[in-house]
Amino acid sequence: MSGLMRRLRAGIVGGGRGAFIGAVHRIAAELDGQALVVAGAMSADAATARSSAEAWYLERSYDSYAAMAQAEAARSDGIDFVIVATPNHLHYPVARAFLEAGIHVVCDKPLAFTVAEAEQLVALVEGGKPLFALTHNYTGYPAVREARALVNNGALGELRKVLVEYNQDWLMTPLEQAGNKQAQWRTDPARAGVSCCVGDIGSHAENLLEFISGQHITALCADLTSFVAGRRLDDDANILLRLSGGAKGTLVCSQVACGEENALSIRLYGAKGGLEWRQQEPNTLLYKPPGAPWQNLRTGKNFSDGAAQAATRTPAGHPEGYLEAFANIYRAFGEQLRGGAVLEDEPGYATMDDALKGMNFLRAALESSRQGAVWVDL
Amino acid sequence: MSGLMRRLRAGIVGGGRGAFIGAVHRIAAELDGQALVVAGAMSADAATARSSAEAWYLERSYDSYAAMAQAEAARSDGIDFVIVATPNHLHYPVARAFLEAGIHVVCDKPLAFTVAEAEQLVALVEGGKPLFALTHNYTGYPAVREARALVNNGALGELRKVLVEYNQDWLMTPLEQAGNKQAQWRTDPARAGVSCCVGDIGSHAENLLEFISGQHITALCADLTSFVAGRRLDDDANILLRLSGGAKGTLVCSQVACGEENALSIRLYGAKGGLEWRQQEPNTLLYKPPGAPWQNLRTGKNFSDGAAQAATRTPAGHPEGYLEAFANIYRAFGEQLRGGAVLEDEPGYATMDDALKGMNFLRAALESSRQGAVWVDL
Amino acid sequence: MSGLMRRLRAGIVGGGRGAFIGAVHRIAAELDGQALVVAGAMSADAATARSSAEAWYLERSYDSYAAMAQAEAARSDGIDFVIVATPNHLHYPVARAFLEAGIHVVCDKPLAFTVAEAEQLVALVEGGKPLFALTHNYTGYPAVREARALVNNGALGELRKVLVEYNQDWLMTPLEQAGNKQAQWRTDPARAGVSCCVGDIGSHAENLLEFISGQHITALCADLTSFVAGRRLDDDANILLRLSGGAKGTLVCSQVACGEENALSIRLYGAKGGLEWRQQEPNTLLYKPPGAPWQNLRTGKNFSDGAAQAATRTPAGHPEGYLEAFANIYRAFGEQLRGGAVLEDEPGYATMDDALKGMNFLRAALESSRQGAVWVDL
Amino acid sequence: MSGLMRRLRAGIVGGGRGAFIGAVHRIAAELDGQALVVAGAMSADAATARSSAEAWYLERSYDSYAAMAQAEAARSDGIDFVIVATPNHLHYPVARAFLEAGIHVVCDKPLAFTVAEAEQLVALVEGGKPLFALTHNYTGYPAVREARALVNNGALGELRKVLVEYNQDWLMTPLEQAGNKQAQWRTDPARAGVSCCVGDIGSHAENLLEFISGQHITALCADLTSFVAGRRLDDDANILLRLSGGAKGTLVCSQVACGEENALSIRLYGAKGGLEWRQQEPNTLLYKPPGAPWQNLRTGKNFSDGAAQAATRTPAGHPEGYLEAFANIYRAFGEQLRGGAVLEDEPGYATMDDALKGMNFLRAALESSRQGAVWVDL
Repeated sequence: MSGLMRRLRAGIVGGGRGAFIGAVHRIAAELDGQALVVAGAMSADAATARSSAEAWYLERSYDSYAAMAQAEAARSDGIDFVIVATPNHLHYPVARAFLEAGIHVVCDKPLAFTVAEAEQLVALVEGGKPLFALTHNYTGYPAVREARALVNNGALGELRKVLVEYNQDWLMTPLEQAGNKQAQWRTDPARAGVSCCVGDIGSHAENLLEFISGQHITALCADLTSFVAGRRLDDDANILLRLSGGAKGTLVCSQVACGEENALSIRLYGAKGGLEWRQQEPNTLLYKPPGAPWQNLRTGKNFSDGAAQAATRTPAGHPEGYLEAFANIYRAFGEQLRGGAVLEDEPGYATMDDALKGMNFLRAALESSRQGAVWVDL
Repeated sequence: MSGLMRRLRAGIVGGGRGAFIGAVHRIAAELDGQALVVAGAMSADAATARSSAEAWYLERSYDSYAAMAQAEAARSDGIDFVIVATPNHLHYPVARAFLEAGIHVVCDKPLAFTVAEAEQLVALVEGGKPLFALTHNYTGYPAVREARALVNNGALGELRKVLVEYNQDWLMTPLEQAGNKQAQWRTDPARAGVSCCVGDIGSHAENLLEFISGQHITALCADLTSFVAGRRLDDDANILLRLSGGAKGTLVCSQVACGEENALSIRLYGAKGGLEWRQQEPNTLLYKPPGAPWQNLRTGKNFSDGAAQAATRTPAGHPEGYLEAFANIYRAFGEQLRGGAVLEDEPGYATMDDALKGMNFLRAALESSRQGAVWVDL
Repeated sequence: MSGLMRRLRAGIVGGGRGAFIGAVHRIAAELDGQALVVAGAMSADAATARSSAEAWYLERSYDSYAAMAQAEAARSDGIDFVIVATPNHLHYPVARAFLEAGIHVVCDKPLAFTVAEAEQLVALVEGGKPLFALTHNYTGYPAVREARALVNNGALGELRKVLVEYNQDWLMTPLEQAGNKQAQWRTDPARAGVSCCVGDIGSHAENLLEFISGQHITALCADLTSFVAGRRLDDDANILLRLSGGAKGTLVCSQVACGEENALSIRLYGAKGGLEWRQQEPNTLLYKPPGAPWQNLRTGKNFSDGAAQAATRTPAGHPEGYLEAFANIYRAFGEQLRGGAVLEDEPGYATMDDALKGMNFLRAALESSRQGAVWVDL
Repeated sequence: MSGLMRRLRAGIVGGGRGAFIGAVHRIAAELDGQALVVAGAMSADAATARSSAEAWYLERSYDSYAAMAQAEAARSDGIDFVIVATPNHLHYPVARAFLEAGIHVVCDKPLAFTVAEAEQLVALVEGGKPLFALTHNYTGYPAVREARALVNNGALGELRKVLVEYNQDWLMTPLEQAGNKQAQWRTDPARAGVSCCVGDIGSHAENLLEFISGQHITALCADLTSFVAGRRLDDDANILLRLSGGAKGTLVCSQVACGEENALSIRLYGAKGGLEWRQQEPNTLLYKPPGAPWQNLRTGKNFSDGAAQAATRTPAGHPEGYLEAFANIYRAFGEQLRGGAVLEDEPGYATMDDALKGMNFLRAALESSRQGAVWVDL
């Protein structure tokens, strides 16, 4: 690693008191001792913004993201990058403000609501300055990196079947009518966008599938439902998939699957092997060779891939979790930012290209479902 | 139990040396000491038929099923029922021969290849004499009975999502071109019928889903594939489902899912609870109440339903398996045959009605897929 | 297989209505179609004996085991072997009566209460006529056979550590004071012998350990307890072990381990590998090579040993359970009885030698505990 | 929380390049944004100390811990507490130096090698100034906190049986003869103390057992072994236990258990319930009520205890791991240090009292084993 002989300075927009994802971003950004969050515009409410910043001992608190972008860009000790952890409808304007100020951006998905917005952001990062990362955090797990490497190295042979799922139950009742703020904006088209379930978690499943398989979805047939009465956006989906390399499969996601916490999983079957991974027990990757025993590949012990090994911080048997996986996204972003030797075409985090794929997937799923669950090409 | 004060006498057609399913039927039929297999026409090859019968110490061996039906019907100590364990194309003629001879029939699925054939068999069992059972054996597991009871009792509330799977890998290579007899007839349209994967195992998944959910499939969108080059029938399918009660879901089956043995599983999610069951560890039924811990319901210990309790032979912790589940089908059939108090509308085994549903499901899946995976009503 | 061209004829002593183990023996003996239970003295109560025999459609019912031994020995179509499924205190007199009548015996453990009794039985089977088997049924699991073969073939290297457990909870309350008949005789020194927990289930753990490891216990240090007030025999034990080959370990058993059903498990660690098996999910054997992924060896799929393969009846993924394992004991006994080619020194079931080892283990454990849990040599 | 409106300043002794535990301490200390490591004496080798400090962007690097203690105590912006992450033999002198300088100490176990040393350290923290914490990090898991609360609240009733294990395999070969530095000091009596396996991991098992059960070990019978030829300290142990409340059990630990990574587990059985927890899948706590289904209590979802809930950072299904558990020790220490309302008698981390218990356990185990595995009182 070359570059700055200091921790990077980070800022954050959103993530104030009550939003669990704010603390996740801070922990993940700081976990490897490579960055420190020093500034924030943590809430649209000025008092909340200030008290949130105080609770985090931030050096600088701003009342608006616009003021923050301007001020930080002007300081000699300004932030190196900003974290965008707001509700969806603010991703675009906030990311734009900082990119225009020349500040690197780490942004929650989705990138934007419209293709026009997305194209503006794409234009701002052309040439790689400033950098942009989308937090598809589940690809940060060492086992996911190993799975990608195994597929890429041909351990599975030609892929035939892929089964990816992301099931939760937190919206199985009309929480949004009971005052839950997370539920309110997630089910509000104005703030969440065109979709709740597919947009929020189906898109993670889609990204995970494409990351590991190295293939993209070429067509889908999506059956979306709002099971909870009065809900304005989907809370469940069953989707048939066809992939660029000839594989077929299903993508299943739900926010009304009673009893499920955060059940993201993927299974891949090829002509020469199978793989299975489950996010809730993330340190085991099941490898299924033909006619031979399943092997329990384990984080920190059996991974063949350099990137998977490097993504591990503790010896085998010391379980790593969600925060460590999230931190791997920040680690890769930090290394890139410091000018490290990471290859441009596989930086270790999701880029604008992935962001656009995700938007396209969402568009196709909504279009398919609206027409009665017909096949739509991507 | 009332009726005969002796073991029932059974005969078998098919199941000769080399066909594992023959021994399964014999063990299942005899397991509870209620029946004994005494006669057989165990192979189309006369020598194999005789040597197979000898190995089983059968009292009477026949060279043809037709001869057997005639002779047994004429004997005062003739068989009480016949087991049809032949390749698919013989189910119809064999079942017909014995039903016409007034002998009760236990038959492997599918019932027949055409609606006309099926209607003839239906006519033969009208009025309940003779009896007919289709061996949808997976519904014999105590945990499956309990799951059905829980759904029926409202423990899950209104069903929203159902995910049923049946994945294997035994046809992941062109076994049928390598001399494997099981693979040869399973992939041969003349002997297996219109489908390999959906017909052989998808139909079990369909039956399991309908048995537990108490709902029937009203529409489906099926994407069938033959992944192995040269194969004439499907070896994989991904299917979207809509059920009569408003639930949606997927049915996934495969015979090319590398590493999978006999991975039949079902998950159901309702407004008030969830359930999960996996055939390979069949003595645990996961019950997922809302906002409370998952409960590991266990065979022989925690089942609330009388039928589930009665289907168990050993104390909890003494694992029951495939053969015991299969034997429960025969036990229920035997009780019905002896004139027991079992209700006609839920005899504990699959009937002509279920057989027809299975044929309809298969028809719809094939039709959907042939048209490009469009929605087809059932 | 050579010998008789008919099913063997079996008799049973004990196992009348209410005793689950009676039905287990019948199912196990008949499962492979090699034997049929035709006669019985199923209860000391004559009426119960008759009604039990009737429920099983037995041809002959006796009021006493003595009368049965005499009568069956005299018949030309008398039983080939007898099953002893009585409470412990009757094992010796019943086994003796049939052995003296020249009838082969399959007997539940323990063999006897005293060394003198045991020696009399040993004398009766010298020369191998008649045959005697003790139903250490857990060694009948295919995975247990495979484990034994792996150890024997050196896959684990020199054994270092063995951990064997058998935990239940059925005696966690004073059931014997509440009228439970099983609990009454199990906790009654006159009928159960010197021990409840160690004698009933600890002895299975001991046998399993010696069967798989190929080593015998040379010394132990046993801490036995009666946790339930008023209980006259032990209901829990923790035991340190030293084995003949230098391995050390623990044997833990309990009948008061709340929530446990029939949690028999074994783990073995050698210089070159480890193994783990759990009776409640008996079709998976975990193999743990050094520095490489764990492998899930599976019944019917990955077993290297001929005996393990032969002990399997269904294709992989069709779970086999307790009854099938028990049936493997009877299958081996039947093959031996028919004069098959099975080696005398590994007949596939526990012999007098194993029975004596079990009695010695029990003696040592009780002696150790009475002296304050000191080391006792075997 | 009250007190300082800034992050705490931490220093570290040991933990330089190559020692994984150094990074673990830094991450754990900083994870909640409550502290920042700013100074270090990270190696006895001056160059390594400097380069390690540089890699961490520390503000101040020292060549010796003595110089560091003196200098930091003298600075107005000196460190608030020091982390002792050296090999065992340095714990005592380093802790002493900082405590004498009035600086709070977080120290790896063991506290010291002799009772005399321990008593000196005890004297230095009497009155609670400065504070001292021992990093028994496994008690930081939310599920462990919940287990303690359940036992304490009587959910298990009177404890009867406890089974605690900690098995690894990293020393199954003579790594210390192959140049592995970790293995060299761990197996060297001069640097590790009287024990390798029991001291390093058995002591964690002992602490976990006492933390959850609320009982202390009153007597033990320990069989320690050095399985690897030439090894000077134990690498395996099997120990019988008796606890202050009447429970009995076993403590098993090993560093030669082939295939095990970091298999710390505990099972507790009482008159009214059972519990099971496994460190490698730390977010599930199995609760086993009598006669009712097992319940999967889950981190972030079903925990009844306030301390267990507070120890969780992410919603259920976002797995937390080893680092988060470790961070909970630092969080509690920081809160105490800031003068928070935490009760003195349960501060959320292990204290001098626990440290002394651990030393006493180790003494008794060694004494027992040396005398041939006899019972020794604690």
